[in-house]
Amino acid sequence: MDDESLWLLPQLIRAQRVASLGTLRDGAPFVSMVLYAPAEDFRSYYMHTSRLAYHTQDIQRDPRVSLMIAEADDATRDPQTLARISIMGAATICAVEDADYVVARGAYLARFPELAFTFGFGDFALYRITAESARYVAGFARAFTLTPARLAQASRIA
Amino acid sequence: MDDESLWLLPQLIRAQRVASLGTLRDGAPFVSMVLYAPAEDFRSYYMHTSRLAYHTQDIQRDPRVSLMIAEADDATRDPQTLARISIMGAATICAVEDADYVVARGAYLARFPELAFTFGFGDFALYRITAESARYVAGFARAFTLTPARLAQASRIA
Repeated sequence: MDDESLWLLPQLIRAQRVASLGTLRDGAPFVSMVLYAPAEDFRSYYMHTSRLAYHTQDIQRDPRVSLMIAEADDATRDPQTLARISIMGAATICAVEDADYVVARGAYLARFPELAFTFGFGDFALYRITAESARYVAGFARAFTLTPARLAQASRIA
Repeated sequence: MDDESLWLLPQLIRAQRVASLGTLRDGAPFVSMVLYAPAEDFRSYYMHTSRLAYHTQDIQRDPRVSLMIAEADDATRDPQTLARISIMGAATICAVEDADYVVARGAYLARFPELAFTFGFGDFALYRITAESARYVAGFARAFTLTPARLAQASRIA
């Protein structure tokens, strides 16, 4: 990976608020929009979501997911040059007793303080997506396959 | 569906240039960014993509896809209120001899005239996603399941 692409990655992951989540629904792909907060080391991504949502139902049946974080299109640039990263991994519930719960809740609420009230809802739960691999497209003809260790490295550069 | 949500839908589908495509990769979901052009009746969505792209390889193995078109996040609004539609369907190659090829190519090039040169590349092909159902979220607590006929109806209102 070239230096510019590596430098862009933490900005992309931290700047966006919404991502596209791919889940399995009756064996077929289903893509929906989710709010997310990255863990400091970029190895995990947290969502706080209702059990009533389609994607939450899907995750409960099969934890395999893909989370794509993409630069928002402001319609001024060649859309092919928008940076994006597709993270593949598994989504698991982040329970109150888990080691990362307090940090995860804090990371989520630091991004979405106005959503603190949803932590009082019985049908909501925090989920962590644990990255297993990622495909990063920094721009036209700049595509890289990344390991979780490489994601963690990117989290430390800026 | 309420009138405001119905009225918003054609704007959403026509205004965006990029979408999130969910495919199956080794049985797991994979989400990537694609450029798309909707058919006039919103029953089909066209992409022009390289055989080398992961999502094209995936489609060739299993045609089941989900295409999510979402309002771009400009970071000024509650992100939960961003409108989005998740279309579920099948992706098939749109060959030169197919009845919809000329119209599809025209729709794609009307949106992306600067990409005309990619039609000269041997590894590129036009694909159509035929919608089988859709989940439309017009905003907070405004979610609707739509049939292809309902999509077609939305295409005629504006």
